[in-house]
Amino acid sequence: MKTIRNKFVLLAIVVAGLTTTHAQDPLPSWNDTAPKKAIVAFVEKVTKEGAPDFVPPNERIATFDNDGTLWCEKPMPIQLFFALDRVKALAPQHPEWKDKEPFASLLKGDVKAAMAGGEHALLEIIMATHTGMTVGEFEKMVKDWIATAKHPTTKQPFTKMVYQPMIELLAYLRANGFKTFIVSGGGIEFMRPWTEGVYGIPPEQVVGSSGKTKYEMRDGQPVLVKLAEINFIDDKEGKPVGINQHIGRKPILSAGNVFSGGDIAMLRYCQSRPGATLQLMVNHDDAAREFAYAEPDNASLKAAAANGWMVVSMKDDWKKIFAFEK
Amino acid sequence: MKTIRNKFVLLAIVVAGLTTTHAQDPLPSWNDTAPKKAIVAFVEKVTKEGAPDFVPPNERIATFDNDGTLWCEKPMPIQLFFALDRVKALAPQHPEWKDKEPFASLLKGDVKAAMAGGEHALLEIIMATHTGMTVGEFEKMVKDWIATAKHPTTKQPFTKMVYQPMIELLAYLRANGFKTFIVSGGGIEFMRPWTEGVYGIPPEQVVGSSGKTKYEMRDGQPVLVKLAEINFIDDKEGKPVGINQHIGRKPILSAGNVFSGGDIAMLRYCQSRPGATLQLMVNHDDAAREFAYAEPDNASLKAAAANGWMVVSMKDDWKKIFAFEK
Repeated sequence: MKTIRNKFVLLAIVVAGLTTTHAQDPLPSWNDTAPKKAIVAFVEKVTKEGAPDFVPPNERIATFDNDGTLWCEKPMPIQLFFALDRVKALAPQHPEWKDKEPFASLLKGDVKAAMAGGEHALLEIIMATHTGMTVGEFEKMVKDWIATAKHPTTKQPFTKMVYQPMIELLAYLRANGFKTFIVSGGGIEFMRPWTEGVYGIPPEQVVGSSGKTKYEMRDGQPVLVKLAEINFIDDKEGKPVGINQHIGRKPILSAGNVFSGGDIAMLRYCQSRPGATLQLMVNHDDAAREFAYAEPDNASLKAAAANGWMVVSMKDDWKKIFAFEK
Repeated sequence: MKTIRNKFVLLAIVVAGLTTTHAQDPLPSWNDTAPKKAIVAFVEKVTKEGAPDFVPPNERIATFDNDGTLWCEKPMPIQLFFALDRVKALAPQHPEWKDKEPFASLLKGDVKAAMAGGEHALLEIIMATHTGMTVGEFEKMVKDWIATAKHPTTKQPFTKMVYQPMIELLAYLRANGFKTFIVSGGGIEFMRPWTEGVYGIPPEQVVGSSGKTKYEMRDGQPVLVKLAEINFIDDKEGKPVGINQHIGRKPILSAGNVFSGGDIAMLRYCQSRPGATLQLMVNHDDAAREFAYAEPDNASLKAAAANGWMVVSMKDDWKKIFAFEK
């Protein structure tokens, strides 16, 4: 009797398992349009041992841009919100900022006027807010800030402004033996404190722009001090350089987005790897659920068409954009 | 009856499992001296869930110096043998080298005279032999070279000049959920082509010194060209900087060796991490089986004594140094 009951339990488990496997869609927030089908087909062919397109697990490197690809970058990149809040917090120690651009405009709440100074203004803001402290102190600032700061239009914490379909894609790739990396123009030390919790991507798999640091002994303890000196800009043609520097091999899957042409070189670099590869370009065409924006020169979409990269329409291909959507 | 038999089978499996666990020594090339005991005790306490010293797997970062810690660095660092062979191969295209130091001495086989020029001479050799080609071309050169090049005294391939106890330590740590990294003053692009096969450490877990690279399109394909410009020197106080840049968190275990004081800052940085940490300093005191050498100022051993770091005597603590030993 016991044996029969055991067999029945075993059968029930097997049946339940089969049912679960079939019912479980690894990409539930994606519509059943061409991109989802192509992603699943790609993952299946590179993971099928013995198949012509098989790629061993150690070579299954996937690189993702962050701003506009994994999380929202409008009305402006989230790191800039952090920088502006830092400017406000530091203003009492800098009375001279009242008459000095770009700080004067920022403190009046006029981001547009502050940014009129272009790259130079941006660099001044970053240097004033991201340097002079130790790496540990900066990490704490970022953690404290991101725990409470909210997006101006959705009023959601910034960590909820991540694209649910991409969260599912990252998890799906990892479940299939891929190692997922961020390769972003954003600051490496701004991303690392939260990417593991939000994306499941540990600090050592985050590639980004950075300033130089200096090793020092303070009170008998070694610290790294963040200097006001650029180390590396991980954008555009810097992305393949950053990938080579940090990862040391070409990705077989790369994802970027339409905004500034910042991911074209990375996707091209990915595609130059021998064997099966996949390139995704997220297109921000959903004004109702997110933001709709394009590039003045349309460079990313042109490159996608010319090279056969997958364009993901947020409007047509994503069932849900944010997890908080009703 | 069936149930009883099943129980017996289960018991047999459990007993066999216990026996196997006890019989399998993960560090068979280590003598049963203090270092081996301390390593095993450390790994057991940081991996024991619920224990006060428990460290979650994602934070189990271990960083290893390469030259003199994982493989032999005498009579000179192995990368220098590669550079010298490249100088010989390139000499026909550089008739001017016959009268130009450090190349003239090198081509006469007088390494000592060539190195009289100090760091500047070394840099000239590295620039002449490690730059001007693409990253892919350089990778192929390293792979071709290391497949056949041999150590001058042992006549063994350089990839056999690795320390067997350290190979076992790397594997033991990984089996316990650690992520193992190389953090070396050597060239990152010189190490990556072979570290995965030899140490089980993939390219993305190799940190080293590097030159700058530039992204270019050649015949419609993106390539990274190696420029004659230093990007980063991953030695001494540069090691914590390199760890922060690549890994973004402090290691809980770091291993270096006595030679040039090159690992002191890394071990100090590791030790500054809150919670349980372990630092190892390999001491080259076995002239019979390897090479015996010390530092003129004894800085590494002094730092080890002052900070309570484990000193590993190759003579006393290693049963076997190289796998090819009889």
